[in-house]
Amino acid sequence: MERIYNFSAGPAVLPQEVLAQAQDEMLNWQGCGMSVMEMSHRGKEFMGILDTAEHDLRELLAIPAHYKVLFLQGGATLQFAQIPMNLLGGRSADYLVTGSWSEKAYKEAKRIGEARCAGSTEADHYARWFKAGEVALDPNAAYLHVCTNETIHGVEVFDDCASLGASVPLVADMSSHILSRPMDISRYGLIYAGAQKNIGPAGLVIVIVREDLLGRASPRTPSLLDYAVQAEHGSMLNTPPTYAIYMAGLVFKWLRRQGGLAAMEKTNIEKAKALYNAIDASGGFFRNPVEASARSRMNVPFTLADAKLDDTFLAEAKSRGLLQLKGHKSVGGMRASIYNAMPLEGVKALAAFMQEFEKKHG
Amino acid sequence: MERIYNFSAGPAVLPQEVLAQAQDEMLNWQGCGMSVMEMSHRGKEFMGILDTAEHDLRELLAIPAHYKVLFLQGGATLQFAQIPMNLLGGRSADYLVTGSWSEKAYKEAKRIGEARCAGSTEADHYARWFKAGEVALDPNAAYLHVCTNETIHGVEVFDDCASLGASVPLVADMSSHILSRPMDISRYGLIYAGAQKNIGPAGLVIVIVREDLLGRASPRTPSLLDYAVQAEHGSMLNTPPTYAIYMAGLVFKWLRRQGGLAAMEKTNIEKAKALYNAIDASGGFFRNPVEASARSRMNVPFTLADAKLDDTFLAEAKSRGLLQLKGHKSVGGMRASIYNAMPLEGVKALAAFMQEFEKKHG
Repeated sequence: MERIYNFSAGPAVLPQEVLAQAQDEMLNWQGCGMSVMEMSHRGKEFMGILDTAEHDLRELLAIPAHYKVLFLQGGATLQFAQIPMNLLGGRSADYLVTGSWSEKAYKEAKRIGEARCAGSTEADHYARWFKAGEVALDPNAAYLHVCTNETIHGVEVFDDCASLGASVPLVADMSSHILSRPMDISRYGLIYAGAQKNIGPAGLVIVIVREDLLGRASPRTPSLLDYAVQAEHGSMLNTPPTYAIYMAGLVFKWLRRQGGLAAMEKTNIEKAKALYNAIDASGGFFRNPVEASARSRMNVPFTLADAKLDDTFLAEAKSRGLLQLKGHKSVGGMRASIYNAMPLEGVKALAAFMQEFEKKHG
Repeated sequence: MERIYNFSAGPAVLPQEVLAQAQDEMLNWQGCGMSVMEMSHRGKEFMGILDTAEHDLRELLAIPAHYKVLFLQGGATLQFAQIPMNLLGGRSADYLVTGSWSEKAYKEAKRIGEARCAGSTEADHYARWFKAGEVALDPNAAYLHVCTNETIHGVEVFDDCASLGASVPLVADMSSHILSRPMDISRYGLIYAGAQKNIGPAGLVIVIVREDLLGRASPRTPSLLDYAVQAEHGSMLNTPPTYAIYMAGLVFKWLRRQGGLAAMEKTNIEKAKALYNAIDASGGFFRNPVEASARSRMNVPFTLADAKLDDTFLAEAKSRGLLQLKGHKSVGGMRASIYNAMPLEGVKALAAFMQEFEKKHG
């Protein structure tokens, strides 16, 4: 069987070029006689891999010099706890609840310390972003937490949260759309992203944190979870997930070869347009509930008007090599995740299949 | 350049067969059209990989049914905090300090709660295990923590800690010798091991915990760090390090093909004997300080009587494809880590080189 088009929300498709390079180097990285997996993390080979990965990520996202880049473990879910452990400092934090992931972050923060829901779109089934003036923020909050792309509900915010008018540090879960387009990093106090969507394999989470937010961890924070300690040790207080960092580094090089994030954004707009057009042109046969201005370019959930056709849709899609399209169990229907590594041809193949399917079953 | 003999203490050498299989399957796992890295962790393909890995590990170590096996992140260093968070329950724990790693575990436990040093071999430069009756344990301790193989100091305990006579649950860091020989799992309350020595790539830590020790976590423990929560979710509260688990599974299969842990022990005894013989037969040119009964079969630190020859030793070793022999900076000299995946031929090549080197420079 050939490679298929993989629409998984994460772990997700990786660029074929990147996998081919990893395959080629598996037993012997650049003639050193070892796999990257076998290298001491403190040896010059791996230190070079880590430094290059950080350098390329800084170039891609134009990360200002006063931000630290950390390569950590535990995914976004551990960040949900690690952020309040490091940043609360005995105060309360504001959380915006815009879907399943920000809700999880909010609940976990309440386990660790004081957190307040400053706004929620739950009453509208999480199918929109906030209207101007809708959210009343606490000016004394330790930080404001947002999820800038909700993977399950398919909601994305495009203005780097400028319309929220936050005066406190903005903390953003960008797991499912980091590197999909240029962002203004300087608007954020802390950004985090699990790798397994737009960066690389699972088991790596990247944290980009403004230096003035370091050194505020509560006293009983485990050393490994203290951002200041990890920053001081260059993400190597202990052995980091070396192979996942290597793979992320290959993805960063691939992104630079594609022309960087401005070029990725252009393609991602084209991909999203092709898929939303297929949905909107179906006259209700397919339906995406999200307000047009907040529709995610990365995760496109959609339902069939007749849910009895769901299994047939998945089976026929699979027979054409279009896989992992089943929606999250909490919302049902379908979901196509079309991250950076999903080629335009994959999205076009899905859109064409949807039109055929509608003709046949509509 | 060919593959070399890699004596790194971790990340460490992996079986060449395992790397070759991973290379073969990199772009298309068993005809599914995806890399293991690209699979949804909740899909049937990855669930099968995880289940098989756990099954094979249970077979290899003969893990009793009333123990849970967890595949976690953060390495042994996060376990240093996670163990007291989960097991202290407001009490104190006893720690035995037998080298750098158990000392780190003890210090981290004191950040989290109450911990007591119940015995230390520091005065003897960590070059031995405890004498009978030397250690006075607290019968009310929440647990007794030991490191059963000290990676830096090369000290190993071979009796599953029976001579300590502990009446409280035994918690053991087995990172650097798990799977090197059969162990009596039923003697322990909890065993943990970072993967990057004898299991697979960095970024995975395995915890084997007796069920009655679950559900005691302190209230502010992050959800992801609560053993009971992870046990309930089959190690999938969030996305686990899928590729590292896949690699560990390939290593487990490889161990079973070698004949399991009894067969590994036989080879590991032979390897250790060859290397310690080369040291002891040198009449003081090379020296290992550890008491004979506590010498590690996995990590063999040694010094040259004339430390001015260290750089020459490393350079000449490298020219013969014997790499990563430099000792840990805290103890100096050399260290040869000879884990399961280091073939007997590699150890013999090192021993032969040492004899030649002594002849030339002695």
